[in-house]
Amino acid sequence: MSEATGSSARPVVGIVMGSDSDWPTMEAAADALAEHDVPHEVDVVSAHRTPAEMLEYGRTAADRGLRVLIAGAGGAAHLPGMLASVTPLPVVGVPVPLAHLDGMDSLLSIVQMPSGVPVATVSIGGARNAGLLAVRILAAGADDDAARLRERIVAFQEGLAETARAKGA
Amino acid sequence: MSEATGSSARPVVGIVMGSDSDWPTMEAAADALAEHDVPHEVDVVSAHRTPAEMLEYGRTAADRGLRVLIAGAGGAAHLPGMLASVTPLPVVGVPVPLAHLDGMDSLLSIVQMPSGVPVATVSIGGARNAGLLAVRILAAGADDDAARLRERIVAFQEGLAETARAKGA
Amino acid sequence: MSEATGSSARPVVGIVMGSDSDWPTMEAAADALAEHDVPHEVDVVSAHRTPAEMLEYGRTAADRGLRVLIAGAGGAAHLPGMLASVTPLPVVGVPVPLAHLDGMDSLLSIVQMPSGVPVATVSIGGARNAGLLAVRILAAGADDDAARLRERIVAFQEGLAETARAKGA
Amino acid sequence: MSEATGSSARPVVGIVMGSDSDWPTMEAAADALAEHDVPHEVDVVSAHRTPAEMLEYGRTAADRGLRVLIAGAGGAAHLPGMLASVTPLPVVGVPVPLAHLDGMDSLLSIVQMPSGVPVATVSIGGARNAGLLAVRILAAGADDDAARLRERIVAFQEGLAETARAKGA
Amino acid sequence: MSEATGSSARPVVGIVMGSDSDWPTMEAAADALAEHDVPHEVDVVSAHRTPAEMLEYGRTAADRGLRVLIAGAGGAAHLPGMLASVTPLPVVGVPVPLAHLDGMDSLLSIVQMPSGVPVATVSIGGARNAGLLAVRILAAGADDDAARLRERIVAFQEGLAETARAKGA
Amino acid sequence: MSEATGSSARPVVGIVMGSDSDWPTMEAAADALAEHDVPHEVDVVSAHRTPAEMLEYGRTAADRGLRVLIAGAGGAAHLPGMLASVTPLPVVGVPVPLAHLDGMDSLLSIVQMPSGVPVATVSIGGARNAGLLAVRILAAGADDDAARLRERIVAFQEGLAETARAKGA
Amino acid sequence: MSEATGSSARPVVGIVMGSDSDWPTMEAAADALAEHDVPHEVDVVSAHRTPAEMLEYGRTAADRGLRVLIAGAGGAAHLPGMLASVTPLPVVGVPVPLAHLDGMDSLLSIVQMPSGVPVATVSIGGARNAGLLAVRILAAGADDDAARLRERIVAFQEGLAETARAKGA
Amino acid sequence: MSEATGSSARPVVGIVMGSDSDWPTMEAAADALAEHDVPHEVDVVSAHRTPAEMLEYGRTAADRGLRVLIAGAGGAAHLPGMLASVTPLPVVGVPVPLAHLDGMDSLLSIVQMPSGVPVATVSIGGARNAGLLAVRILAAGADDDAARLRERIVAFQEGLAETARAKGA
Repeated sequence: MSEATGSSARPVVGIVMGSDSDWPTMEAAADALAEHDVPHEVDVVSAHRTPAEMLEYGRTAADRGLRVLIAGAGGAAHLPGMLASVTPLPVVGVPVPLAHLDGMDSLLSIVQMPSGVPVATVSIGGARNAGLLAVRILAAGADDDAARLRERIVAFQEGLAETARAKGA
Repeated sequence: MSEATGSSARPVVGIVMGSDSDWPTMEAAADALAEHDVPHEVDVVSAHRTPAEMLEYGRTAADRGLRVLIAGAGGAAHLPGMLASVTPLPVVGVPVPLAHLDGMDSLLSIVQMPSGVPVATVSIGGARNAGLLAVRILAAGADDDAARLRERIVAFQEGLAETARAKGA
Repeated sequence: MSEATGSSARPVVGIVMGSDSDWPTMEAAADALAEHDVPHEVDVVSAHRTPAEMLEYGRTAADRGLRVLIAGAGGAAHLPGMLASVTPLPVVGVPVPLAHLDGMDSLLSIVQMPSGVPVATVSIGGARNAGLLAVRILAAGADDDAARLRERIVAFQEGLAETARAKGA
Repeated sequence: MSEATGSSARPVVGIVMGSDSDWPTMEAAADALAEHDVPHEVDVVSAHRTPAEMLEYGRTAADRGLRVLIAGAGGAAHLPGMLASVTPLPVVGVPVPLAHLDGMDSLLSIVQMPSGVPVATVSIGGARNAGLLAVRILAAGADDDAARLRERIVAFQEGLAETARAKGA
Repeated sequence: MSEATGSSARPVVGIVMGSDSDWPTMEAAADALAEHDVPHEVDVVSAHRTPAEMLEYGRTAADRGLRVLIAGAGGAAHLPGMLASVTPLPVVGVPVPLAHLDGMDSLLSIVQMPSGVPVATVSIGGARNAGLLAVRILAAGADDDAARLRERIVAFQEGLAETARAKGA
Repeated sequence: MSEATGSSARPVVGIVMGSDSDWPTMEAAADALAEHDVPHEVDVVSAHRTPAEMLEYGRTAADRGLRVLIAGAGGAAHLPGMLASVTPLPVVGVPVPLAHLDGMDSLLSIVQMPSGVPVATVSIGGARNAGLLAVRILAAGADDDAARLRERIVAFQEGLAETARAKGA
Repeated sequence: MSEATGSSARPVVGIVMGSDSDWPTMEAAADALAEHDVPHEVDVVSAHRTPAEMLEYGRTAADRGLRVLIAGAGGAAHLPGMLASVTPLPVVGVPVPLAHLDGMDSLLSIVQMPSGVPVATVSIGGARNAGLLAVRILAAGADDDAARLRERIVAFQEGLAETARAKGA
Repeated sequence: MSEATGSSARPVVGIVMGSDSDWPTMEAAADALAEHDVPHEVDVVSAHRTPAEMLEYGRTAADRGLRVLIAGAGGAAHLPGMLASVTPLPVVGVPVPLAHLDGMDSLLSIVQMPSGVPVATVSIGGARNAGLLAVRILAAGADDDAARLRERIVAFQEGLAETARAKGA
């Protein structure tokens, strides 16, 4: 499941997960990026099964042109935090709910990071918001591309409002 | 407690909190930004006591040149999520622990946002990491300033490692 | 899903929810009001997708003749609290359970409001009780209509007792 | 600790608690009522130690002229719910935190009421908000007194905003 | 659902529940009593819908010859504790799990009783153990009947062991 | 800390705990028994440090004339359940809160017993109620002593009511 | 369900569970041992139904040649801890999730052991990891067999990595 | 804080922690090893601040003669699990409680490991038991040293019993 999607352009967001069983949850992050035409790549990189490759992925991410990482994991979810420890990029963590505890273990394992190594955590199973957060981060830049992306977010938010209004009308 | 700090430059990060009683927790966010010479402003903006000003703060944040918002709140903590609903900027949420429940209510009120409106949540009381996450977000830009900031983060991470090594030596 | 129900009279209770997916939960509030012939309106008003309209709804509620608001929301549930911040009316909050955490996040996000801005919270998924609470509130008035409604509640309570007695007989 | 306070007028709000050890928590409810010149009475009425008097208190409350009850209790907190079962008045429940569990037991014992018997629950230890909610309920009436009280609430809310603005200025 | 079962003898254990929807859970208590030939009665007695009858049930229980009460309830489960407040008999509480929170609210509402009014709480949904506990309580008496019942419990325990041994053989 | 107290009569209640550090919590059980003139013994019997003696204590308890056991333990609290597995006597379990988790681990380890082996669980730290529950159990007997003890409980309950009334007066 | 599996060699790991209903969960422990050719036995030994046999099992385990025990149990799960109290062998505890609380009660009952009596706890339902942990423990020995087993673990870990790489390729 | 203690012999247990602030908790592990004359080393190795050194520590641990690792960490505690992913040695995890959540986040982050990578988790703050578990693991070997150590554990357990008996006498 290693793929570059969104466009033929060089990926700027890397979506990684600990297991391909996380894909049904994480796919929504890729969708959100695609909706905003943000080129991204998707990979399975396990903190616990391939720790060396995982660190290597994190260490080289910025140099390969990635600007945001999105990492999903469940249970004792170490992937987002370990990536954050080896990259200067912002890392968005998605707590994937497993068979027990409804994702509370995943959430705490991701969000309760020690001082010095932040992970931008979204809701349990909230991969779509992880994608949208990555878009906001890219849109926070100082250049014209960021400004254009920021305008797209404003339009997207207006779309949310329109949909809500239609339901409430 | 409205102040612009970090340098005389125009603030690019806005730190807001629901009450000035949150300042002892939130101050660490400002410190982290100052350590990285990121100009920022600090304000008390209450979702529940001044809702109109709160929305106005969020709506105008991008146009005033802010690029990241950091919002801290406790209990039924609505400030980060409400700001995220009116700005295209990335919003970092800090769950402030109150007298009961050890911040679990604050955490869930901030992180469990509905699809479409992400908040980048850090740990309970983790204001320093909120500041560092804002730095990473600014460093994710495509321009030279961002690249320079990214180098500073790498240096900061190496400093963390050096300190840890010294303790372990 | 904007409708005025209960009778042709001007609505005195406004039922709002963050998403039309909350309706299966919230419908029981409308039913309870209808059983007591309390005119009410139902609307989708999202704190996060249409924040300006949401505040406008709250701000104008009293002047439009509404006397109680019932607001249901799930996850980081901000709707009841935000409405309470802009209206002098009593706001009844219904924690809607979502796919994870069994409504505990919804409950804490609604009930743990800061001092100054109360929300009258009912049980997780307890929309019927929200409707009945609104009836009690209307029946707490000093006028004859309130007294009559209070008598209806006493009769309703006796009906509950009768049903329970029939089961226990 | 049976007293009528707020003014010499007949009490319209009854504040009750299971034990006088709850008074340090519950006093804030009385203060909030006094600030709005709402006549109220305060009593210790234990669901578990004086169950008959407790039910009698609830049964006669409306006829004695009370229009709202505020009940605080901790642990297996049965007072608010039991009162709600014998009165048509709205009952506001205050979860009082005890030595263990940080009030989570009190909260669940009060808020998770069965269908048919609502309790308007406020935050753990949130007695001040219980008082303010009672004021809102009284202000929801259809008569002139209620309208005047509603205006006072609006003024009170503006005062909250002013205080917050002063801190943020 | 008012019935005397176990034998034609006068009931010595009263099983009560807040709603007949609790019967599928509570039936196991009756079965355990029947297995030990303990005469018992079953009734629906709601703390919240028929509070007066509920207290009356508790007040007269000892005089009617009952020696142990078993009470099951869910959510804000007040029935066991309220009965315990008006009877000198030991009250066994069964937390009935409802649609949300997996019975944790029921458990805390029953077990966290204030000093002076004990409830003998068993596991969530543990009605069979409630019945067995009632048998042990009856067998704790000083007379010959109690001694005989104690021997039956010892035999029952040996039966449990035999079954477990058979599975492990 | 092996002692027989309450009177010179043969003990009928055995109070045991896993460690003498539990005594400050468990002492209240002894006090409640002494107030009702119930002869009792106190011992430290550890499920984990002296498992053989612990089982021996349980196995011989009934034959030594004990009629109720009260067992307190904290954390992974196995003492009450293990005793219940080797005695036909009713066992009252007291969850002792330790340094972390506020007694929730103790509570669940004691109350969630499997079918067949009940433990009568009281509140976290609720040793006084454990003692009072033992009195109720002894008072549930069919003989005259039990009837007299039942009258004492009724008087005790009236005393609770008087005290509460005095506070509420 | 008493069986010796893995090979015809004398068992070195004993897998025990409180009930044969735990077998669907615990089977994965046996599978993991079999994959590493570790001879093991499986038995149902109930802490609560056959406490004497349970202690006997633990007391004789080391002399019978067992070197690691794996014990699974649910709810108030006492089996792992009780075994650990009577054997010098390392005991691996598997929290088996039951119908309520999602295994949190099982986890706390197993992991929160008092000082002096450790249980090596794995995840809720994590029987496969319990088997793998037993393999690691056997491979921690100082002899050649242990060294060979350690090499097998390294190969197993490389297999995990290969599988993960294949999915990520 | 890198030291080899216990004796002049080559360390066979490695105690590591994420921060020297964990030492007050973790010291008890070293003490338990010293009491059993098990040579051990102590180091600060941070999963998040020195991830490369951390993995290197784990990868080389077996070859350096270590036979068991003990790792303590708090919050989003990744150290034990990450070490377990790169060593074939058994890893004992100690959840260190931090300022909030009482160690529940630490516990879940350590114990809820995915299939394939076990961590032997002890209680919150249970470093002494981690040391004792390491001793048991070393005593599970097939050689004479292990047998001798096993005898010491039996003697240690008898000591625990003696102490408990003394308290209960």
